[in-house]
Amino acid sequence: MEGIVRNNDYPYRVEVCFMPGQYPLYAQDMGIVVVIDVLRATSAMVAAFENGVDRIIPVSTIEEARQYIGREGYIAAAERNGEVVEGFAYGNSPLAYVGQDLRGKTIVMTTTNGTKAINLAKDARKLVIGSFLNLTALSDWLVKQNDNILLLCSGWKDKFNLEDSVFAGAVMERLLDSGRFGVEEDSSIAAKYMYMAARDNFHSILKAAPRRRRIQQLQLLPDVKYCLTPDQSTAIPILVNGELVRMVP
Amino acid sequence: MEGIVRNNDYPYRVEVCFMPGQYPLYAQDMGIVVVIDVLRATSAMVAAFENGVDRIIPVSTIEEARQYIGREGYIAAAERNGEVVEGFAYGNSPLAYVGQDLRGKTIVMTTTNGTKAINLAKDARKLVIGSFLNLTALSDWLVKQNDNILLLCSGWKDKFNLEDSVFAGAVMERLLDSGRFGVEEDSSIAAKYMYMAARDNFHSILKAAPRRRRIQQLQLLPDVKYCLTPDQSTAIPILVNGELVRMVP
Repeated sequence: MEGIVRNNDYPYRVEVCFMPGQYPLYAQDMGIVVVIDVLRATSAMVAAFENGVDRIIPVSTIEEARQYIGREGYIAAAERNGEVVEGFAYGNSPLAYVGQDLRGKTIVMTTTNGTKAINLAKDARKLVIGSFLNLTALSDWLVKQNDNILLLCSGWKDKFNLEDSVFAGAVMERLLDSGRFGVEEDSSIAAKYMYMAARDNFHSILKAAPRRRRIQQLQLLPDVKYCLTPDQSTAIPILVNGELVRMVP
Repeated sequence: MEGIVRNNDYPYRVEVCFMPGQYPLYAQDMGIVVVIDVLRATSAMVAAFENGVDRIIPVSTIEEARQYIGREGYIAAAERNGEVVEGFAYGNSPLAYVGQDLRGKTIVMTTTNGTKAINLAKDARKLVIGSFLNLTALSDWLVKQNDNILLLCSGWKDKFNLEDSVFAGAVMERLLDSGRFGVEEDSSIAAKYMYMAARDNFHSILKAAPRRRRIQQLQLLPDVKYCLTPDQSTAIPILVNGELVRMVP
């Protein structure tokens, strides 16, 4: 395949891990991990930083997030099965943050898949957050790094997920084109195949993805359209001492 | 995507599971499981039946297979990491069976990935063996079944594997075109994307797949070319009481 190159010809590797459960099989020698949950956790995180939030604390359990409800300066956000958890004002919808002034605020967030993946990879040398919203800014930063990069898809309840994998393919293409990164894993090549098949219309992905039915039930189509629109932000969230902050390039 | 249909419009589902470790997440409601290990276990099994073998007993351990070495009427085959295990005359090469008269013989086989996947799914209502060698015969049989079908890729050491997934996409396209099967899983749609990207040249898949380097090291290119050549056999191996036999249509 054009654009597919062999690792041993290039200084660094970029690989794709399709689901959190496979992370231990792919984590070795990976210095930078990009956590991806296009629908919707990592899109919401980028949107929050685009709207000025100070920091986001990803937590695994609803109980941890609940302690911050109503606390001054904090926004408690919890999503399970695509819906806002009872008692919370925020879930994982990026549109909930758009147009707000979040300066000085801290979001404490727990989601079905995304925050789980962040927690899994929290010991990586560098952990950053990816979504279509920051595709170009993230890719431009990644391409300058002197390290191996793992694109970690959050998936859906430990299963393979189409939109995360297509986004990983989009990032991968930009890194392969730089000539500084090669691939070794079949999963990485497959992600590029998927991106090439879907590149001209990201929305066709979800039209194809049966989970779209779930999304329609939850009336999330405006959210989905927003999450699949590239380059709405230059924010790159990075994990520092267990908290996501906006990277200062 | 053209050809991608939603499960709830169709009587039966056909889904793809990318790796054995994910099988429990996909097995529910699946009556027929197709085990796929294109390079090379399931290709070797089809080749053996094409050359007249009576039955194949898939075993999990080298020790089980070793007990059959030199026993009258038995062929003991063992592969690990792509190589014939020491002390065995056969591994998982289909070409080892081509041109032989295997009538009246029983093969006892253990491989790195394929026989493991068979063992995992042995309790399915029906378990059959798929490879490019029997693509059309298998698809023509599957399309007539009144049951949900799971295409189970053996993968490579529990990781995603490109050639198995592309083959699954090839089978899936034929089942979707029948109008009797729909899909629900993102993995199934992704397999079809991959097949559409690779359909015109199966060998380009392996040119792209870095594992090709391993294959070259093992000097398996004639094997690979054979395994990627569709429709060399009408044999459909099916598991009956723990033994694979040639299905009598």
